[in-house]
Amino acid sequence: MTFRARHLLGIEHLAPEEIRSVLDLADRYVDLNRRTVKQSDALAGMTQINMFFENSTRTQASFELAGKRLGADVMNMAVAQSSVKKGETLIDTALTLNAMHPDLLVVRHPNSGAVNLLASKVNCAVLNAGDGKHEHPTQALLDALTIRREKGRIQRLTVAICGDIAHSRVARSNLILLGKMENRIRLIGPPTLMPSGVAEFGAEVYDDMREGLKGADVVMMLRLQKERMDGGFIPSEREYYHRYGLDAEKLAHARPDAIVMHPGPMNRGVEIDGEIADDINRSVIQEQVEMGVAVRMACMDLLARNLRAERGAKAAETYV
Amino acid sequence: MTFRARHLLGIEHLAPEEIRSVLDLADRYVDLNRRTVKQSDALAGMTQINMFFENSTRTQASFELAGKRLGADVMNMAVAQSSVKKGETLIDTALTLNAMHPDLLVVRHPNSGAVNLLASKVNCAVLNAGDGKHEHPTQALLDALTIRREKGRIQRLTVAICGDIAHSRVARSNLILLGKMENRIRLIGPPTLMPSGVAEFGAEVYDDMREGLKGADVVMMLRLQKERMDGGFIPSEREYYHRYGLDAEKLAHARPDAIVMHPGPMNRGVEIDGEIADDINRSVIQEQVEMGVAVRMACMDLLARNLRAERGAKAAETYV
Amino acid sequence: MTFRARHLLGIEHLAPEEIRSVLDLADRYVDLNRRTVKQSDALAGMTQINMFFENSTRTQASFELAGKRLGADVMNMAVAQSSVKKGETLIDTALTLNAMHPDLLVVRHPNSGAVNLLASKVNCAVLNAGDGKHEHPTQALLDALTIRREKGRIQRLTVAICGDIAHSRVARSNLILLGKMENRIRLIGPPTLMPSGVAEFGAEVYDDMREGLKGADVVMMLRLQKERMDGGFIPSEREYYHRYGLDAEKLAHARPDAIVMHPGPMNRGVEIDGEIADDINRSVIQEQVEMGVAVRMACMDLLARNLRAERGAKAAETYV
Repeated sequence: MTFRARHLLGIEHLAPEEIRSVLDLADRYVDLNRRTVKQSDALAGMTQINMFFENSTRTQASFELAGKRLGADVMNMAVAQSSVKKGETLIDTALTLNAMHPDLLVVRHPNSGAVNLLASKVNCAVLNAGDGKHEHPTQALLDALTIRREKGRIQRLTVAICGDIAHSRVARSNLILLGKMENRIRLIGPPTLMPSGVAEFGAEVYDDMREGLKGADVVMMLRLQKERMDGGFIPSEREYYHRYGLDAEKLAHARPDAIVMHPGPMNRGVEIDGEIADDINRSVIQEQVEMGVAVRMACMDLLARNLRAERGAKAAETYV
Repeated sequence: MTFRARHLLGIEHLAPEEIRSVLDLADRYVDLNRRTVKQSDALAGMTQINMFFENSTRTQASFELAGKRLGADVMNMAVAQSSVKKGETLIDTALTLNAMHPDLLVVRHPNSGAVNLLASKVNCAVLNAGDGKHEHPTQALLDALTIRREKGRIQRLTVAICGDIAHSRVARSNLILLGKMENRIRLIGPPTLMPSGVAEFGAEVYDDMREGLKGADVVMMLRLQKERMDGGFIPSEREYYHRYGLDAEKLAHARPDAIVMHPGPMNRGVEIDGEIADDINRSVIQEQVEMGVAVRMACMDLLARNLRAERGAKAAETYV
Repeated sequence: MTFRARHLLGIEHLAPEEIRSVLDLADRYVDLNRRTVKQSDALAGMTQINMFFENSTRTQASFELAGKRLGADVMNMAVAQSSVKKGETLIDTALTLNAMHPDLLVVRHPNSGAVNLLASKVNCAVLNAGDGKHEHPTQALLDALTIRREKGRIQRLTVAICGDIAHSRVARSNLILLGKMENRIRLIGPPTLMPSGVAEFGAEVYDDMREGLKGADVVMMLRLQKERMDGGFIPSEREYYHRYGLDAEKLAHARPDAIVMHPGPMNRGVEIDGEIADDINRSVIQEQVEMGVAVRMACMDLLARNLRAERGAKAAETYV
C-alpha cells in the first residue's frame, strides 16, 4: 500500500498511487460489509471523534459505521448545540478535543479552509468530511470506487458533472480526482452556477445538457445547494428541471451503457427524474452509499497505520 | 425455539408459540441484565440502526441498551434533524440506510403502516418500535412477560385496559396478544376514546370504570395521548381523572391481588394516582421497564438467528 | 487504594486519602490515554448512562470517552428532548433508568441537590457532573491532578480563585478540596459575585486582584456565568475585564512560576487575555482537559470496584 498522508484534507494532496491504494483496500472492505459479521479490529483501542459543524446525517452515519466496524471508540460531537454557542472559537474547540487524545478527527465545517486550519493545530489524523465550497475528498473517492467497479477502470472515461458546479465541493473534489486519473471531464450547468477558472482543470464547459452528455460514460448529477446561494441567482425548480434535470430523453444522449450518479440526498423532480434514480440498470446511487462506508473504512485504516508508524506504537500494546 | 419471522412488525403476525419463544428467551436475559457484567456476543459484528421519526427517549434507550449488551454496533439516527428535512422521502432514507448494510433496523414513525412499507424495501430485519396508531409489538411482549412473571401464566386472565384506547398502539398490540393467548379482555374508557370495531377482538367494552375493573387480574392504564388527538374531543384532565384515573377506591373493585401497569411516561394525577403508581405491592411499572430491555434483547437475538440462517453465514466468520 | 464511596456526589464527602487514591490511579490513566491503543477492560460488560439536563459538550465528551476507553457500554440521554418534556418528573426518569440496570449514572442538573436526590433512589453508582451552584467534583479532582503534576504536590500552596465565585460550583468544589489538602486559598472578585459564608472554608477574600495574586502559586480563573445571574448584577464585560480579567500585568503580581488555569469554555478578552491562555509556559488549560478524561476514568473505575465488591460479582462472570 502506498499512502503517506498524515491527514485526508483534500484530493488535491493525493498522488494517483495513493488514490489507488485507498480504492484497493476499500474493495476488500466492501466484501466485509456484505457479511453478517462485519467487524475488524484495525482501529481497536483508537478514538474517533466526529465533529459536524453542519448537519449531515448521511455522511456522519457513514463515518460512524465505518469506525465502529473497525473497532474504534466513536464519539459524535453535536457541535451545533455545543460550547461553540457559548462563544468558544473553532481553535479552542479543536485544542480541547486534541487534549482528549483522539486518534482520528472527522470534521465537517461550513467554511472553506476551516478543516485545514484545524489540522494544523492537532496531533491526530484529520479527515475532511466537507468544508464549505472547498473539498469533500471521501465523496470523490467513493465516486471513483463506484465508477471503477462499474466500468472496470477509472481512466480514460468521459465523465459529465451536471448542475450547480459553483457551490459544490463534491464537484470540485471529483474534478481534481478525475483529472489526476486522466479522464475527460465535462461540466454542464447554467453559466450562473459555473465557477470561474475551471479551464485550469482541463474541463470542457457546456450550458446545453444534451450536447454535454454526448458520449458520456458517467453522468454525475449534483444536488441544487440552495442553502449556499447567498443572495445570488436562484433558479426556479421548474425551469431548472426543464433545462438541467436528468430525464430519460436527456440521458439518451449519453452512451447507452452510461451510469447515473448522485451524491444524495436527492431532490426528485428537480435535478433528477425519480424513475431514472430508481432504474437499477442505469442508476448506481445506492452503490455510492455502500461504497461510502467502505472508502471511509479504508481511509481511516490507512491513516491509522501511518499514525502507528509515526508514533512507533505497537498495535498489541496493552495496559493494566 | 420457534420463531420464524424475518421482521417484527406487529403482534398480529406472530403465532402463540412464537410469542412464547420470545418470552422464554427474555426470561434468561432478565437474569443477565441483573448481573454486574451484562454483555453477551449474540450480535457481535452486527449493525443495529435506531431510526426514530418520533422522539421517545425511553423506548430508544431500551433498544440501544439491548443492542449494546448483545455486542452489536448500535447507531442512533436523529431523523428529526436529518435529510428528511431536506425533502428526502422515507423510502430514500430507508434505501440509503439499507445500502450501509445494517442487520437490524429499529423504526418508530408517526404514520401507521410506515414501518411495514419500509420493511418491504430493505434486506435487513426490521423491528417496529411503534407506528402511528397501529402496533407497538415489543411493548405488548414486555407487558406479557411482566404479567407471566407476576401471575405465573399469560392465559385465562381477566385484563382491563383503561383509558385512551382509540389513540393507542399499545392498547392495540396488547389486545391482539392477549386475545391470541386466550385471555378475557375488557376495554374501559369514554365512548369518545373507544375505537370502532373492537368487538372483532372479542373484548368487552365499559365506560364505567368500577364495573369494568370487577374481578380483573391485571389493570393496564394507558397514557392520555393528547398529541394524537387532532381536532377531536379532548377531555379536561380533572374530569378525566375523576372518571378514569386509577386511585385506591377504584382499584378496590379489581381482584385483591390485581397488578397495576402503565407503559410510561406517566401523567401522575391524570391517568393514575401517584401513590398507586409507587405502591410496590400493586404497581409493576418499574418491572415493565426492566422487562422491556430483556424482551428487546430476545427479539433481536431471534431475528439475528433467522438472518444468519437465511444468509448461511457463520457466526465465527472473520476478516483480515 | 482507599476509596470507600458508593457515589461521587461531592468533594465534601471525600477523605484526603480518597482524593489521593483518585489522583494516583488517574496518573496511570494519563499514560494509557497518551498511547495509540487506549483501551482497558475495567468496565467491560458494565453500562454507563450519561444524563445531562444541562448541555455541556466538553464534560459529557470527557465522561463518554472515559467510559468507552474502559470498555463500558455508554449511552447518552438527550434529556432536554426527552420524556421530561412530556411532564415526567426527575424521579420517574431516574426510576425508569434504574430499572434498565445501569452500573454508572453520570448526571448534570441545573438544580443544586438534584443529583443527591436522584442517587437516593437508584441502585447504581451516581457521579455528579455538576448540579446547580452546588458541586462539580470531577472538575476539582482534575484541577488537583493538574496542580499536583505541575507543582509536585497538592499541599501548602497558595491558590487564588478569581472571578464569579458566587455562581460557581467549580469554585465551591475546589474550595473544599484545596481546604482539605491544607492549602492557602484566596478568593478574588467583586463583592457582588462573592458568596456569603466563605470564611468557614478559611479562605481570604480580596476585591483587588493585584493584591490577591501576590505570591500565588496557582491562578485559577472562572468562567463568567451570565446564564446563572438571574436578575442580579451583571457587570459589563469591558469593566469586568479591566478589573478582574487576567492579563500579563496582573499576572506579574503572582509568583514567577505561577500556573494559570481555567475550566473552559473561555471567554477570551472577558476573564482572560488570549495570549495568557495560549502561553504554554504559564497556562495549563489544555492539560486540565487531558487530566479530565483520566480523572473520570479513575473515578468510574474505583466506583465500579466498590459496586462489584458490594454485589459479590466476579469480573469474569459470563453468560449464554
